[in-house]
Amino acid sequence: MSTKNTEVQGIKGHINNSLRARRLGIDTQYETIIFMRTDCPVCRSEGFTAHARVKVTNGRHSIIATLYQVSSELLGHNEAGLSESAWKRLDLLDGDIVTVSHPHPLSSLGKIRRKINAERLGAEDFQEIIDDVVAGRYSDIHLSSFVTACSSNTLALDEVIALTWAMTQAGERLKWKKHPIVDKHCVGGLPGNRTTPIVVSIVAACGLTMPKTSSRAITSPAGTADTMETMAPVDLDIPAMRRVVEKEGGCVVWGGAVRLSPADDTLIRVERALEIDSEGQLIASVLSKKIAAGSTHLVLDLPVGPTAKVKDAALAQRLSESLLLVARQFGIEARTITTDGNQPVGRGIGPALEARDVLAVLQNRPGAPGDLRHRATSLAGQLLELGGAANVGEGESLAIQVLDDERAWRKFQRICEAQGGMREPPNAPYRHEIAAHRRGTVTSIDNHRLARVAKLAGAPDDKSAGLELHVRLGDAIEAGQPLFTVHAESPGELAYSLEYAETAGGIIGLSEE
Amino acid sequence: MSTKNTEVQGIKGHINNSLRARRLGIDTQYETIIFMRTDCPVCRSEGFTAHARVKVTNGRHSIIATLYQVSSELLGHNEAGLSESAWKRLDLLDGDIVTVSHPHPLSSLGKIRRKINAERLGAEDFQEIIDDVVAGRYSDIHLSSFVTACSSNTLALDEVIALTWAMTQAGERLKWKKHPIVDKHCVGGLPGNRTTPIVVSIVAACGLTMPKTSSRAITSPAGTADTMETMAPVDLDIPAMRRVVEKEGGCVVWGGAVRLSPADDTLIRVERALEIDSEGQLIASVLSKKIAAGSTHLVLDLPVGPTAKVKDAALAQRLSESLLLVARQFGIEARTITTDGNQPVGRGIGPALEARDVLAVLQNRPGAPGDLRHRATSLAGQLLELGGAANVGEGESLAIQVLDDERAWRKFQRICEAQGGMREPPNAPYRHEIAAHRRGTVTSIDNHRLARVAKLAGAPDDKSAGLELHVRLGDAIEAGQPLFTVHAESPGELAYSLEYAETAGGIIGLSEE
Repeated sequence: MSTKNTEVQGIKGHINNSLRARRLGIDTQYETIIFMRTDCPVCRSEGFTAHARVKVTNGRHSIIATLYQVSSELLGHNEAGLSESAWKRLDLLDGDIVTVSHPHPLSSLGKIRRKINAERLGAEDFQEIIDDVVAGRYSDIHLSSFVTACSSNTLALDEVIALTWAMTQAGERLKWKKHPIVDKHCVGGLPGNRTTPIVVSIVAACGLTMPKTSSRAITSPAGTADTMETMAPVDLDIPAMRRVVEKEGGCVVWGGAVRLSPADDTLIRVERALEIDSEGQLIASVLSKKIAAGSTHLVLDLPVGPTAKVKDAALAQRLSESLLLVARQFGIEARTITTDGNQPVGRGIGPALEARDVLAVLQNRPGAPGDLRHRATSLAGQLLELGGAANVGEGESLAIQVLDDERAWRKFQRICEAQGGMREPPNAPYRHEIAAHRRGTVTSIDNHRLARVAKLAGAPDDKSAGLELHVRLGDAIEAGQPLFTVHAESPGELAYSLEYAETAGGIIGLSEE
Repeated sequence: MSTKNTEVQGIKGHINNSLRARRLGIDTQYETIIFMRTDCPVCRSEGFTAHARVKVTNGRHSIIATLYQVSSELLGHNEAGLSESAWKRLDLLDGDIVTVSHPHPLSSLGKIRRKINAERLGAEDFQEIIDDVVAGRYSDIHLSSFVTACSSNTLALDEVIALTWAMTQAGERLKWKKHPIVDKHCVGGLPGNRTTPIVVSIVAACGLTMPKTSSRAITSPAGTADTMETMAPVDLDIPAMRRVVEKEGGCVVWGGAVRLSPADDTLIRVERALEIDSEGQLIASVLSKKIAAGSTHLVLDLPVGPTAKVKDAALAQRLSESLLLVARQFGIEARTITTDGNQPVGRGIGPALEARDVLAVLQNRPGAPGDLRHRATSLAGQLLELGGAANVGEGESLAIQVLDDERAWRKFQRICEAQGGMREPPNAPYRHEIAAHRRGTVTSIDNHRLARVAKLAGAPDDKSAGLELHVRLGDAIEAGQPLFTVHAESPGELAYSLEYAETAGGIIGLSEE
């Protein structure tokens, strides 16, 4: 086909799709959004199509963005507003000109439709999908559809391997000269389970190499990186991280700066929002990060409990088998251990409060939480055996010894110094105790709701916010006895959290008298 | 649990979650969004959680909205911005105070997770989901997950019936004193297939009652309501519609004002954006509208073709059986007919251009599109038989007779007058011909892409925009011969459309020489 005459060039000169970019400061997290006036030619062409996607270019970069129409005077004529994600991906400066046009359809969306139709996808299919995810070409509804399709039609093992590989390939990969490179991971869902700084200290004190990259919280009140940050800087780039590891044998830094498996960060947010978490996506999420981090030996902690991610022993068994199978495909020697996931670990929930528990264990303080200590030495013991630093059956006793004689504590201090200087976790100025209104025995603790209370109090952005848990399963409680104390940095956040704590109910279950 | 002391009331006084509502004029279609400053207490509590949902109340109404954080000076302190959908659902006035709090989780989301896990849902499950959809309690990612889950795990027949019923119940229902109430529906995907105004005119001229509510375009360049609107007002409320039907036996009005099966309008937009369209959802979509409209006798047109919604005869057969089965459950006597879906119907695509085809058929003009005429008399014939106005086998010849002797044309004019006055479809000021650049025979016409060209030219919002198709399958074409003419109301829209028409390719397929 051709246009009949050359005047079409003249017509094209009329395309008034060049607009002055304006940074609106609207943070949509992932989705790139362009805001355009309802009376502009593009909006008139697109009409009031829901979820319309347009191509936006500034000469240097090009993105696909969701079009939101603006009928107010928020935008001037010839202005286009951009969300933060769109602004950053286009690398714009205020006043830059952007051009809007019709995008070609994404062929990877056809692959999602094939998955919806229960077809099995191949390695290139997953790579194309993941590359589009990382490039920001999906809208939130596409992400949601992909995540839902992979949960509805269970991924076969070869699909899990393909997805894991695609996610690994779509980001940075670390390479290390030392061998082995040991690592641990806890398959989430248990507040306060902050063993990592202790495990790294023990293992590195025994001569193994453990370059740990940890995440910040996504929906939880604290990630390991958030907790570690209250004791030392964690925002290190790769060269700085290498220097720490070469000097001390271990580190605990934030993985975000390192950009390992960035697709995981995007997909996991949608999975959390939908509260779905299929086995295939969980495995790809965990292992893509470990492969990208260059790990060779890995211990996986699977807490099992009614409000933990893994609900029962049978599920733990199946998940464990699949994790080990996929890890082996990538040359990773892995072990899984199932642990008690019925209640939070330690006393604190929230970055600084969890850091206090970590320090108490490392410093062998009287009253240090025994459950956190036990979990840490058990995991460290497994790693010491797996990494060849202890004979089989002797790992845990070595770990205990290294903790008792304060070699782990000294190693932790040196790691903190190497990361930029050790510091004291902060204290929250506003606190409020929640007490039992009758006597009874503690029969259940809802991990989810307790985490939500801590989060609404401001954790993890407010480092000192969160809660201290005063009871454990099986404790006999008197009426008026404190159950937990909420910590916050402002009265507003304290109130927002208490409002939830009071209405949610069932956070701490007491037996009938 | 109880708070330990009464000072918590004092603490709650500190909740600074009361904000002045500001209408930002941002149209997100369905999703309700609240924009709040990053430095406000709620944003600090929620943290940078992606897809965070908050409860927003203004005393009179309460909604759940997605929280977008704003880091610029777009909003003043103590101001909250609201999307159009949020503004309308809260029924706000500028300067009203809204309060933001933590919402209770929606229990219907657990039902979506059950569907993802391939469980069969019951009637109450679907009702709860659909009620939340209609109340605006879902975000786009929830809608996307629901639509994807219902496509991934094929709905069983009893689930389709439950979903259909839930969608019907969630809106208005029309009741009529007359019997039968006849209706028709085309299972979409074929541009220009504008038989409805002709069928209504024929059937009403023969004494049957056909109170037709039609949709506006969602992603297509014209819905029947858009086309009809170029000839008469369609925005009638229920009493006005009743008056037209009582007087003339038929009408063609916009269904949107009548609020039949409003969940359908929301779900269908997400399905279109994802380009998924499962059989179960299609059936529920079509039949929920018909049940709500009070139809008792229904003819369903299923165009079959490679770029139509129904791709082949086997799929048409299966879909037909399911449609008839579900219709029978609701006491509707239905027939399906499969028709040729290989190319557009008539010549025009776009509201006014399609209206011209309709008028040419009704007025028996020389050169009126024969395919449109034939489709209309065939559908009308089926309805005349189904509704008892013609003997079996004699419906189509009666329809032809009523068209030929201009009884249908006179009925149409009376219906237009009753709806508020007949008018002339407008003409587009800007036109551009797309010509063949070589000779050949037309072997394929891509319905989707042709529709996209018409849409980008401004249809359906610009009533006169769209295109005229000059060729049919099998036509022998010379180089330079016009294939289609794009019509637009502004040079910018014409150019935006032509840019797509030139780069998309494969719109009109020609045989190799």
